[in-house]
Amino acid sequence: MATRVDISTSLDGYVAGPNVGPDHPLGEGGERLHDWAVGSASWRESHGLEGGETGPDGDVVEEGIARTGATVMGRGMFGGGPGPWGDQPWEGWWGDEPPFHHPVFVLTHHAREPLEKEGTTFTFVTDGIAAAVEQAAAAAGDKDVLVAGGADAIQQALAARLVDEIQLHVAPLLLGGGIRLFDQLGPELVELEPTRVIGSDAVTHLKYTITGGTR
Amino acid sequence: MATRVDISTSLDGYVAGPNVGPDHPLGEGGERLHDWAVGSASWRESHGLEGGETGPDGDVVEEGIARTGATVMGRGMFGGGPGPWGDQPWEGWWGDEPPFHHPVFVLTHHAREPLEKEGTTFTFVTDGIAAAVEQAAAAAGDKDVLVAGGADAIQQALAARLVDEIQLHVAPLLLGGGIRLFDQLGPELVELEPTRVIGSDAVTHLKYTITGGTR
Repeated sequence: MATRVDISTSLDGYVAGPNVGPDHPLGEGGERLHDWAVGSASWRESHGLEGGETGPDGDVVEEGIARTGATVMGRGMFGGGPGPWGDQPWEGWWGDEPPFHHPVFVLTHHAREPLEKEGTTFTFVTDGIAAAVEQAAAAAGDKDVLVAGGADAIQQALAARLVDEIQLHVAPLLLGGGIRLFDQLGPELVELEPTRVIGSDAVTHLKYTITGGTR
Repeated sequence: MATRVDISTSLDGYVAGPNVGPDHPLGEGGERLHDWAVGSASWRESHGLEGGETGPDGDVVEEGIARTGATVMGRGMFGGGPGPWGDQPWEGWWGDEPPFHHPVFVLTHHAREPLEKEGTTFTFVTDGIAAAVEQAAAAAGDKDVLVAGGADAIQQALAARLVDEIQLHVAPLLLGGGIRLFDQLGPELVELEPTRVIGSDAVTHLKYTITGGTR
């Protein structure tokens, strides 16, 4: 088992476009980062939908789903609604049948009881990224922990050297602004080993193992 | 003929590492962005050196050299020395036998006479990126214009929609800081079409045609 980052970005390194807000939850143009996945049969099945295309991009989605035993995410990815939690805590924006089908650990500063949904229990972790990854690893059994996002959570995991593998799904776009995947990593150099490249007309999948770091 | 960008970056999108200065002209760790090319026989030959490796990475270098008829670069890439030009203008840091072997057009705010070196004449252009690309295109004949760098010059060319093709040579590193390739592009989305992916242990070559832009 490994701790993985696996996320769609634009060629200019954004995981969301400019002006993130109610009208554009992924920023302007940001939804296009996910076009390659949303059209695949594997993604659609995991979201309770029929149809979709099969092929190399779908295989990459399916591989990611099969290998992941638990997910870690930031508070924003869980749901941008009201907080801190009140008497009626916000249930996030994943609905009654979230697409994860495994335990999810949410980074937050505000403690609350776990939230149980069909196939997925959201557990709220208040003591930081290392604790969240540790709890997720215990829940994942012999499968991987996915640090799913947002960019903040991924940056925290990288800075704390908790990540073993990075896969970027590079969408053929320059968004020109928005939320950068790689930011605030600090001055240390991280060495990677490329382990796989898969390209299609819609996206390029770049997979790396983290092998070390130092200047 | 096309106007191309063709540059090495880290996976986190930097073309130079942190703390660029006399001790580290490419920033800390930045020289490692070019390891993949410097070891190739094609690169060494263009720089008047013998030996080196042949293989897919060298073929990519060779293709770039063969297709390029003129280069556009920023003032910083020409040479970071004293300026504005005095009675004895700085000759840049490319030496008496620059590796270009074709005309080079340097963006600057300070007019000066062309500088002739073995196989390369440096022409100084004071009226902006579009004029520099136009002059380079006239000099390139049926070959391409390469907008070589730095990041500023490339950003200006992209923002002015002067670029037809982008190739990134993605080195397997996170530099964590430095000079970003894609920055200050502004709010407009640019659409790309992936045209080729070549991967080795040392680098991943991602090639795109710019197909449009709008939100």
